[in-house]
Amino acid sequence: MAVGQSIFPRMPAIDGVRLGTAMAGIKKPERRDLVIIEVPEGAAVAATFTRNAFCAAPVHVAKAHLEHATPRYLLINTGNANAGTGARGIEDAESCCTALADLAGVVSHQVLPFSTGVIGEPLPVERIAAGLPHALESLDADNWAAAAEGIMTTDTRIKGASRQVELSGGRVTINGISKGSGMIHPNMATMLGFVACDAAVEPARLTQWLREAVQVSFNSITVDSDTSTNDACTLIATGRGPAVVSADDERRFCEALTEVLTELAQAIIRDAEGATKFVTLQVEQAASVIEARAVAFTVAHSPLVKTALYASDANWGRILAAVGRAPVDDLDVDRIVIDLGDVRLVEQGGRAGSYTEEAGSRAMAQDEITIRIQLGRGEEAATIWTSDLSHDYVSINADYRS
Amino acid sequence: MAVGQSIFPRMPAIDGVRLGTAMAGIKKPERRDLVIIEVPEGAAVAATFTRNAFCAAPVHVAKAHLEHATPRYLLINTGNANAGTGARGIEDAESCCTALADLAGVVSHQVLPFSTGVIGEPLPVERIAAGLPHALESLDADNWAAAAEGIMTTDTRIKGASRQVELSGGRVTINGISKGSGMIHPNMATMLGFVACDAAVEPARLTQWLREAVQVSFNSITVDSDTSTNDACTLIATGRGPAVVSADDERRFCEALTEVLTELAQAIIRDAEGATKFVTLQVEQAASVIEARAVAFTVAHSPLVKTALYASDANWGRILAAVGRAPVDDLDVDRIVIDLGDVRLVEQGGRAGSYTEEAGSRAMAQDEITIRIQLGRGEEAATIWTSDLSHDYVSINADYRS
Repeated sequence: MAVGQSIFPRMPAIDGVRLGTAMAGIKKPERRDLVIIEVPEGAAVAATFTRNAFCAAPVHVAKAHLEHATPRYLLINTGNANAGTGARGIEDAESCCTALADLAGVVSHQVLPFSTGVIGEPLPVERIAAGLPHALESLDADNWAAAAEGIMTTDTRIKGASRQVELSGGRVTINGISKGSGMIHPNMATMLGFVACDAAVEPARLTQWLREAVQVSFNSITVDSDTSTNDACTLIATGRGPAVVSADDERRFCEALTEVLTELAQAIIRDAEGATKFVTLQVEQAASVIEARAVAFTVAHSPLVKTALYASDANWGRILAAVGRAPVDDLDVDRIVIDLGDVRLVEQGGRAGSYTEEAGSRAMAQDEITIRIQLGRGEEAATIWTSDLSHDYVSINADYRS
Repeated sequence: MAVGQSIFPRMPAIDGVRLGTAMAGIKKPERRDLVIIEVPEGAAVAATFTRNAFCAAPVHVAKAHLEHATPRYLLINTGNANAGTGARGIEDAESCCTALADLAGVVSHQVLPFSTGVIGEPLPVERIAAGLPHALESLDADNWAAAAEGIMTTDTRIKGASRQVELSGGRVTINGISKGSGMIHPNMATMLGFVACDAAVEPARLTQWLREAVQVSFNSITVDSDTSTNDACTLIATGRGPAVVSADDERRFCEALTEVLTELAQAIIRDAEGATKFVTLQVEQAASVIEARAVAFTVAHSPLVKTALYASDANWGRILAAVGRAPVDDLDVDRIVIDLGDVRLVEQGGRAGSYTEEAGSRAMAQDEITIRIQLGRGEEAATIWTSDLSHDYVSINADYRS
């Protein structure tokens, strides 16, 4: 299942960024499972990674390579996460980087590896190496959709977003693709996101802007509270287009970047495992953003709220109970107001006087639902997005060895 | 569904403690839904309550009454939680206490109210009041099983535990009943637990011992991470039996009390909504008990671990990923050891060398499973219990308005 319509956007070519794919048979035959993204010389590259302590071998290797060199290639495989694989996993990730570097005429530190799929199986290095020549041959600046397909696991849709923004020096294009459907509660970035633009930005600023945009996009979604071992988001700035020079340029660029990342993050929620609802949680009047996010994620992770959403049951008592158990001290329930769409559910510690079951049921019947929680404690706010908990979520995760 | 066998134990009468039930038609007809527990004069009563900020009206009222008087009656209804009901909920709970106090010839502060069931509906005070005379007429010291039935909601089994322990002054009997199946992640106590004994203990010590026993029993279980608005656990000590005088008496009494509470808490997990597995999570070698519990609950709340348990799939990568995202700083994954029953899953950052899929599958096929996680950071430990996430959990919670 998936929520709403999905249209893969037109992705204008970004000069110097080429994408190639291959069917390497990593887990299944006849499936695009290997992707290469070529980064032009002179580009700046920023990346954020999972904070899971058991982070995968490619995360370790990508972080180390980023410290030594500016990447020329991103190497992504699906079907195997190369996580929980100990010292051998590190060697295997390095071997794949070396194989690509040798073919492409760069050094292995200039290759960043990314993996997604089953945890704990040895990476099939030889199959990946055998697929590299075909992936290199297919490199093309118009291959964004094929690359988006090549990074999918339990995803049912390819996910892409694109924006063009006018800076003082001219038009900048930002393209991104992402994957993710389950084990989604990113802490730094989503499962996998790859974004490229033609702006000229120095690496330190690029990293800062990526972090800020990731916090309100990928780090603001949750399917099942399970932070992956492999989350990574990479942003390439080729430098072949206009530079970001003024404060106004910076604001425009960061807005467009945040829009691309938010659209990709929301696409993951729309395609969440078993999802039948796309749910926006807005927490307002909080004493801090941290507190607002804590309340939002407590509600978003509640199995009882998620099953009520699945049932289209306006069971607002479960929302109230989840807010009440959020890790926030001294919540004054008499000041809390909860709305479902345009229907007021809760005020003054109980059911709103204006509430009717009919109005609640009508609001809950929508595919896209907004739950707004005003805490009456301050002026900070946070918005996150989540999905419901359906029979299909259980089926997918009781069957799929991921 | 429920896990394992269930045998309601023999419950010896505790002199002075009588239990009565009635069918008051609170939510459904022809169902025991009203329970009274009579406490003898001179007894000590201790209680712990939910920390949910949206705690129910009866929790507010019971806390206030406990400050004013020693209870003579506990009044429990199912079918309606009287939570999220604002000022009217408080009035309704007080009205029920007054109705019982008038009939029984005590003052209303001597009645403690408890409610469980649907959140946000007005309490049907008149139906409860109409059921009180019959409940009073049926008071009997041998009514523990009927009372256990009368407090059930989505429970499929009645839950009781009993111990007798020899103190220096003679034999003490401890009886307890509990209810709970979903919205279970107690934070102070379980959904509802009522325990009585004939020991003589002053109230302050009774409260302290109850808190300590609750922490390692009811506060160490989780079905779905959703802390209820109505959790409460009450302990009556009639004082008609032997006193707890020596340090040895205290140790024996507290051990027996902890055993009763643990058996009741485990019975809730065995009867958890949709449960097909009873899972023990032992976290050892932690730097603190808080840290050990944080790791244990992170694994226990992981939907991906819970669905793998449901599928009897030895998908240890999901356990590893959940441990890795636990809120503990500086986890050294190379020191972490994870066992499933007697099968080693993880060591040195990856799959154990001795692991085979066959051994993992055999361990996962059991109804009762122990996951042991050694963190290699210290000498503290914690044990908690949880259930799996099945299709039935989704069905129960997408159908039942609780």
